[in-house]
Amino acid sequence: MNLPPRTVERLSKYRRLLAKTRKGDNAYIFSHHLANLLNLTPVQVRRDLMLIGLSGNHRKGYNIRELIMLIGKTIDREEGHNIGIVGMGNLGRAVTRFKRKNEAKMEIVAGFDIDPTKIDIESDGVPCYHISSVREQIAIKGIEIVVLTSSAGAAQSITNVLVEAGVKGILNFTSEHLDVPGDIYLKEYDIMTSLEEIGFFIKDPDNQV
Amino acid sequence: MNLPPRTVERLSKYRRLLAKTRKGDNAYIFSHHLANLLNLTPVQVRRDLMLIGLSGNHRKGYNIRELIMLIGKTIDREEGHNIGIVGMGNLGRAVTRFKRKNEAKMEIVAGFDIDPTKIDIESDGVPCYHISSVREQIAIKGIEIVVLTSSAGAAQSITNVLVEAGVKGILNFTSEHLDVPGDIYLKEYDIMTSLEEIGFFIKDPDNQV
Repeated sequence: MNLPPRTVERLSKYRRLLAKTRKGDNAYIFSHHLANLLNLTPVQVRRDLMLIGLSGNHRKGYNIRELIMLIGKTIDREEGHNIGIVGMGNLGRAVTRFKRKNEAKMEIVAGFDIDPTKIDIESDGVPCYHISSVREQIAIKGIEIVVLTSSAGAAQSITNVLVEAGVKGILNFTSEHLDVPGDIYLKEYDIMTSLEEIGFFIKDPDNQV
Repeated sequence: MNLPPRTVERLSKYRRLLAKTRKGDNAYIFSHHLANLLNLTPVQVRRDLMLIGLSGNHRKGYNIRELIMLIGKTIDREEGHNIGIVGMGNLGRAVTRFKRKNEAKMEIVAGFDIDPTKIDIESDGVPCYHISSVREQIAIKGIEIVVLTSSAGAAQSITNVLVEAGVKGILNFTSEHLDVPGDIYLKEYDIMTSLEEIGFFIKDPDNQV
């Protein structure tokens, strides 16, 4: 299915929120309620759900169980994805901890680092290997997605190795902007950008969203 | 100035990238080059820069120094912003480390935690206080922005305290969706959403962006 990245992002958020609020198999939610919880417009929510083939009931809204199932059918892959973390410093270990039992479709299967004191130690059940065995472990464990939390200086050279080794998607937390081939899905997150955005909108009450 | 959040986000990224590539006071860059570096369209870049009052030179492109200055004038506040981090676990300490010397407009001035072993210890020059003194320190240090990396369970109750204490912006890294008054600027980042987005776009080559 062909969906814009923002839609996939919102579908993921709808599911997470609904999984928490779910009360029973016959619970319903209105688009305006869901929109309100995520600071979106009801029109946006209805459009997203229409894209995955779901239209709500005017009187009752959307069946929550059906909604969660259909989002899963749309965005998950049945066999899931294996994830590796390159850089097991503070951030890498924090990411490992985010792994949640109930989201089995995404499994963190290995960490990598260059620091010998971190090797062979499990963090939250995830083994840590030396970066020199990253190609081998990517093949053995079928790692397709890598969360990159290395130093900025090492980021591009590590990325080149990851891509060669067959990784298909990278979540880049370093401050380095990465250059990847067109068939690699790259997502970058820079905390300074988020802080500057917040700074802009609070500096002056005229900066309304 | 009235700008959409996505524009502010991109302006912040342009500046970060340009600050790195800057060569001399008379260096220029074309919109298509800048667009290419960030996987955007040249039209998007030109529209963003037009919004802050900058039009490029057809022959030479944009003057990089002027561009960086004008972005700063638009999104920064002259006196900067003081930032606090609530939750000095792995993620909180990683955020502290992101603080960069050259971005003095955003200063991390305090960390807070409930764990007594973390209190009174400096992480990368940032002192850590017990969460019970958060109101006091927000007032003393003029903290306006808080990065929240506490447990999900504690997130909403801490947020209520922060808002009461005068915090204006929150960057929420917990998996809890927060409820804040309309005059608080809230930005939420959930790593699972990023991973699910990557998973969707790599699971099937038909999912083209």
